[in-house]
Amino acid sequence: MGYTSIGPTTLLSPLPVVMVSCCDGDGRNNIVTAAWCGIVNTHPPMLSVSLKPSRLSHDWIRERGAFVVSLVDRSMAEDCDFCGVRSGRDTDKFRERALTPLPLSALPEVPGIQGSPVCLPCRVHSIQPLGSHDLILGNILDVCVRDDLFDGDGSLHLERAGLVAYNHGVYQCLGDVIGFFGYSVARKDVRRKRMQRYAKPGGASGHRQA
Amino acid sequence: MGYTSIGPTTLLSPLPVVMVSCCDGDGRNNIVTAAWCGIVNTHPPMLSVSLKPSRLSHDWIRERGAFVVSLVDRSMAEDCDFCGVRSGRDTDKFRERALTPLPLSALPEVPGIQGSPVCLPCRVHSIQPLGSHDLILGNILDVCVRDDLFDGDGSLHLERAGLVAYNHGVYQCLGDVIGFFGYSVARKDVRRKRMQRYAKPGGASGHRQA
Repeated sequence: MGYTSIGPTTLLSPLPVVMVSCCDGDGRNNIVTAAWCGIVNTHPPMLSVSLKPSRLSHDWIRERGAFVVSLVDRSMAEDCDFCGVRSGRDTDKFRERALTPLPLSALPEVPGIQGSPVCLPCRVHSIQPLGSHDLILGNILDVCVRDDLFDGDGSLHLERAGLVAYNHGVYQCLGDVIGFFGYSVARKDVRRKRMQRYAKPGGASGHRQA
Repeated sequence: MGYTSIGPTTLLSPLPVVMVSCCDGDGRNNIVTAAWCGIVNTHPPMLSVSLKPSRLSHDWIRERGAFVVSLVDRSMAEDCDFCGVRSGRDTDKFRERALTPLPLSALPEVPGIQGSPVCLPCRVHSIQPLGSHDLILGNILDVCVRDDLFDGDGSLHLERAGLVAYNHGVYQCLGDVIGFFGYSVARKDVRRKRMQRYAKPGGASGHRQA
């Protein structure tokens, strides 16, 4: 199979696409969209978000040392895109998109976004300039999960959330579950039984339509 | 809508899941799977991969200062999982999974993985201990794309690659394209025309079955 070299660019994919909320000292809120983000550490749990220093949210996050990452499902995709192309300098994004701030007890000063499947309040650990972007590392203070994503037995089914990924300029919903961590070495019966958890009655797509 | 707080954990999702190849001074190759990875900077293009210091690949990447990130499609998902659960200390993963090293001119000492949709050779920029994991930042030296992902006019269709995401313990293929960057503010005719690019003849899933 042949390959073509296209030179150095940011073609890691798929990427998470999340809505990052923050606030200024007067209690005004803003939301910025980020796909340059990821998990960087397990213990303690930490994530990264890279932002251009010119972004309003960059200033507010640096000043307040805190932000909230809200995961994005199909129903939020257009709001998420909007928050990535408009600036908080001239748009109140919560109001413009009729989004409701979600208070989070672990970080009272910054709201998440009501309706998001999962909100992660974070405290800034460090900010490192890398060139076009600053790498912001955050300590994850808590994880707040929408109640309907839990099963009757309390297990979390995030594969049913209809989460959205960013793939080279487009937003794609997650589709079917093709395996679980360790499935390549699992016994056949274990594998079959475990995979039944992800088979949705009445649909093969592995996610609920929002 | 109600929420339940589950305490601090690494529940950012979806995440990329990639195969990271590296080599030692004797030219032996290894592959480690990483979901703790992401883009951290646009100019210059940089990515991050977080690895436990106990991993063999962590030592080899630190020693050689180089690694290759290979994106994973549906056909590679089981190989990818295997490389995440077995150690290179007692398994030759290329041989065990019948994977073929892919030479990359930008980084002759470390191969990518033949068949991967996209390979990104990287030089280590820095390694920062964060606790359980070390945050490895890499400068992306080049991007090598499988030829069949280009259209007749040379445009890249990564949405057809059937890329795999990691979502809270399961692997999910990317499904349908629901929008493009800026679609929330695009004129209706522009939006309709652009979305036609992602409509696949003979299937609504937005990706090719590998």
